[in-house]
Amino acid sequence: MPPAARTLTPAEKLDWLRLIRSENVGPITFYQLLARFGSAAAALEALPELARNAGRRRPLGLCGKPAAERELAALEQAGARLVARGEPDYPALLAAVEDAPPLLSVRGDPALLQRPAIAVVGARNASANGRRFARDLALQLGAQGLVVVSGLARGIDAAAHQGALPTGTAAVLAGGIDSVYPEENRELQAGIAERGLLLAEMPVGTEPQARHFPQRNRIISGTALGVLVVEAALRSGSLITARFALEQGREVFAVPGSPLDPRCRGANDLIRHGAVLTETAEDVLAAVGAHLAPTAPARPVPPAEAEAAPPAPAELAVALDRVLEHLSPAPVPVDELIRQCRLPAAVVSAVLLDLELAGRLERQAGHQVALVG
Amino acid sequence: MPPAARTLTPAEKLDWLRLIRSENVGPITFYQLLARFGSAAAALEALPELARNAGRRRPLGLCGKPAAERELAALEQAGARLVARGEPDYPALLAAVEDAPPLLSVRGDPALLQRPAIAVVGARNASANGRRFARDLALQLGAQGLVVVSGLARGIDAAAHQGALPTGTAAVLAGGIDSVYPEENRELQAGIAERGLLLAEMPVGTEPQARHFPQRNRIISGTALGVLVVEAALRSGSLITARFALEQGREVFAVPGSPLDPRCRGANDLIRHGAVLTETAEDVLAAVGAHLAPTAPARPVPPAEAEAAPPAPAELAVALDRVLEHLSPAPVPVDELIRQCRLPAAVVSAVLLDLELAGRLERQAGHQVALVG
Repeated sequence: MPPAARTLTPAEKLDWLRLIRSENVGPITFYQLLARFGSAAAALEALPELARNAGRRRPLGLCGKPAAERELAALEQAGARLVARGEPDYPALLAAVEDAPPLLSVRGDPALLQRPAIAVVGARNASANGRRFARDLALQLGAQGLVVVSGLARGIDAAAHQGALPTGTAAVLAGGIDSVYPEENRELQAGIAERGLLLAEMPVGTEPQARHFPQRNRIISGTALGVLVVEAALRSGSLITARFALEQGREVFAVPGSPLDPRCRGANDLIRHGAVLTETAEDVLAAVGAHLAPTAPARPVPPAEAEAAPPAPAELAVALDRVLEHLSPAPVPVDELIRQCRLPAAVVSAVLLDLELAGRLERQAGHQVALVG
Repeated sequence: MPPAARTLTPAEKLDWLRLIRSENVGPITFYQLLARFGSAAAALEALPELARNAGRRRPLGLCGKPAAERELAALEQAGARLVARGEPDYPALLAAVEDAPPLLSVRGDPALLQRPAIAVVGARNASANGRRFARDLALQLGAQGLVVVSGLARGIDAAAHQGALPTGTAAVLAGGIDSVYPEENRELQAGIAERGLLLAEMPVGTEPQARHFPQRNRIISGTALGVLVVEAALRSGSLITARFALEQGREVFAVPGSPLDPRCRGANDLIRHGAVLTETAEDVLAAVGAHLAPTAPARPVPPAEAEAAPPAPAELAVALDRVLEHLSPAPVPVDELIRQCRLPAAVVSAVLLDLELAGRLERQAGHQVALVG
């Protein structure tokens, strides 16, 4: 086990939970606070003043200890528990993703996602052929040692889980770990809890809402070596998952289909833009098979928790003006922003952190940021 | 009209016909003889001795004047005539292909293939959806000014011709210009003769045989800016046409389909290897649309008929041994052979010409040559 992987103490985990559940703290902010203050406890202590300094008027909504303890109890009630990024049970590949959830609710066998995985996603209104294809392919990939990850939606997702249930499958839920959605997959979800692995980023008790799905999709792609798209229309959720896969440096696979079937247009479009055209399990294995060697994949190193000297306040005040000049409600890549501002990356990051805590900044896909309108 | 395009006199055309119909004279040999002797008449005169010198025992089967005249009469009877490479009526793009037929039988409107064309080919046992797709796409491409070329086979070919009949379509026959194949397309063939263009390389009166089809396919791709493959199985004739297109520097387009349908595996495989994934006419037009500008495409210059000083006989005798050392029944690219022999390209060409006339050499696709076993 590489030295970076360690198990948090119960007190540390409670602090992590309080920090990530606090207002305006997303994963990126979480890791920056951790790096800046050395621990979640220190960050929690510093947060109120930090937010005040960044121009916030009403107090920041911190997650209190009792609320965090209630969540842990509810998790236990639901047969689930939390794993933190950096812990041995955290999905191995997901740990390498920049905005991976600091904490995941898991139910079932977390060892599953220490094995190489492939995501299989697609249309809810899939054709019978598409569902059959997804199930058969998941079965074959499973037989070759790949864990199959999907989102437990109707159609392709459900078929992929079914095909891989005997060999190992993980479902990433958009709501809390105890949410059942859609109702028709209740039995399948129970089967995965028992024989596979359920994952959720949202707090236990959260009903899935539309905005949760794209967020969830980054976890599906993040846990896997690649994403296989079966029957996806243009502008569908599956294409969002494929885009996350590209951003995360993962492979994208797509199954071609007739141009006369609108459910195939999205997958065909992925192929047109470079996805691996996939007709058989061999097409997938040819691209990711190297990871199936008997040696375990190297565990990516989680972000350092070492203390970093924060920029001086005077420096930050000047930088804040300069960064605000270059920000607008239109998203801009952080790299681009750093170049435009001609400031050290660490200084720009600190300013963005302040702005986010103040609720004035929004992080978007592709490492982009935008002012809140 | 560029100066190179000129119309042969009737006597010249008769000589061309005699030369190309003579034993062991294929298109490449034809052009080399023309370059070496300055005219078809001079080549016909020199041939017997050339073949004798190359080690041939029984006399070379020259096509006599009466046989050539009979072919011309039969052509007229069939409502067709011959056009020679380099003549204004010869298909513009085909003239640029190295092994283009020196003479083509044509029936219908030869002006058609002075316009930009696209080939649409595919499975004989195509699905109803595939045929509909081919017909609709041909109709749309025709509406955009592209002539649609195909091979008049059942299935995709016939559907493409039907779709483009009102706007312009050309069919390349595997047999003679008067052969009707398959019988079910008799009416369509008559329609194309009347409103479009029929082409054939084989002599009038030739029934199509299996070996004619690959030869024919090089003409389909050669007349067109690109080849679109709709529903083609692995190892199908359509893939041969696509391969010719690549060798000729033409674009290859393929329509994706379900991996569950074996008729789509060939087209999917083309996409996997770089063919343009094609769902709509726009996908084709985006790649070849530039050729639809109001100005006519530049007519490629046909091979020079100027005299070339032949290598000295002593030089050839030495070279013959060296070339034979490097030849075997396994095909070798001519370029490679020239490098291996360390002889001037003109000398190797002259030796290969002699060997071919002697019936000891076979030319194969991809500019390869092999000893006859």
